[in-house]
Amino acid sequence: MDFKQYVTVVEDFPKNGVRFKDITTLMENGEAYKEAIQQMINFAEDKQIDVIVGPEARGFVVGCPIAVAMGVGFVPVRKAGKLPREVLEVDYGLEYGKDSLNIHKGSIKPGQRVLITDDLLATGGTIEATIKMVEELGGVVAGIAFLIELSYLDGMDRLKDYNVFRLMAY
Amino acid sequence: MDFKQYVTVVEDFPKNGVRFKDITTLMENGEAYKEAIQQMINFAEDKQIDVIVGPEARGFVVGCPIAVAMGVGFVPVRKAGKLPREVLEVDYGLEYGKDSLNIHKGSIKPGQRVLITDDLLATGGTIEATIKMVEELGGVVAGIAFLIELSYLDGMDRLKDYNVFRLMAY
Repeated sequence: MDFKQYVTVVEDFPKNGVRFKDITTLMENGEAYKEAIQQMINFAEDKQIDVIVGPEARGFVVGCPIAVAMGVGFVPVRKAGKLPREVLEVDYGLEYGKDSLNIHKGSIKPGQRVLITDDLLATGGTIEATIKMVEELGGVVAGIAFLIELSYLDGMDRLKDYNVFRLMAY
Repeated sequence: MDFKQYVTVVEDFPKNGVRFKDITTLMENGEAYKEAIQQMINFAEDKQIDVIVGPEARGFVVGCPIAVAMGVGFVPVRKAGKLPREVLEVDYGLEYGKDSLNIHKGSIKPGQRVLITDDLLATGGTIEATIKMVEELGGVVAGIAFLIELSYLDGMDRLKDYNVFRLMAY
């Protein structure tokens, strides 16, 4: 399947000069969305995954269907103030600014094998923060899966110690 | 399955006096998460659903796995400024304040049968806004599915013209 035909490139969003990769048109197409998730499951299925972790909100649209299809749990990574119990907090730089991410303490058990998911790898700041949180909780990052890599931003350089899958590259 | 045993009730979040229903502990359990989604699919499967619609971010954790399992598309409803193309915007009141929601124009085709999903029905403001957007785009709301209803907030009163399913009630 040529997945790129379902992605809409939007010029100058969220700011001038950015060519935003809009995956909502892929998700609106049931066949394309299901096949994209299936390819990520194919990547994950020999890795003895115990749990999926994904940052809000677009990490959920990738990770949650994978978790349910594989019958494993999903642990959300959220912006500050969204998770109700005790959290581990990590600051990170992202493509268009700076922020902090939270994960519930105890959500990953020491030794659990984790698949991290997100829609898009840009500079890699979000994923680097997510890896840091997973490893600090004692999890093992067994794989990382994206729908899209923006290869000109070199985010893959920050992930060279990990097993990474991406469905499309720009 | 007694789903409530997987929900964590957190006192005084996000503000004093609120007993927050935390579904992350349900989602962390692969078996419980999968079975919860399956029950929502059982509700939906005789309704000729063409597309799932859910508000960010917790509507995604329910709706996206249903969409992929059923092989239909998913259309996100997001806060202002998140969707890159032309949107329909609707203001709404919610349990803890006021905000506006967006949906991409053209994301739902006239006559499409829609299942709306969210994690929790409180006062019903978010869902009422979502229904309004779906219907303004020409969609038919064929069903609405929640994990949890807070029955003491009477949100169900605003949905009495619709076919509603909820897995748990408090």
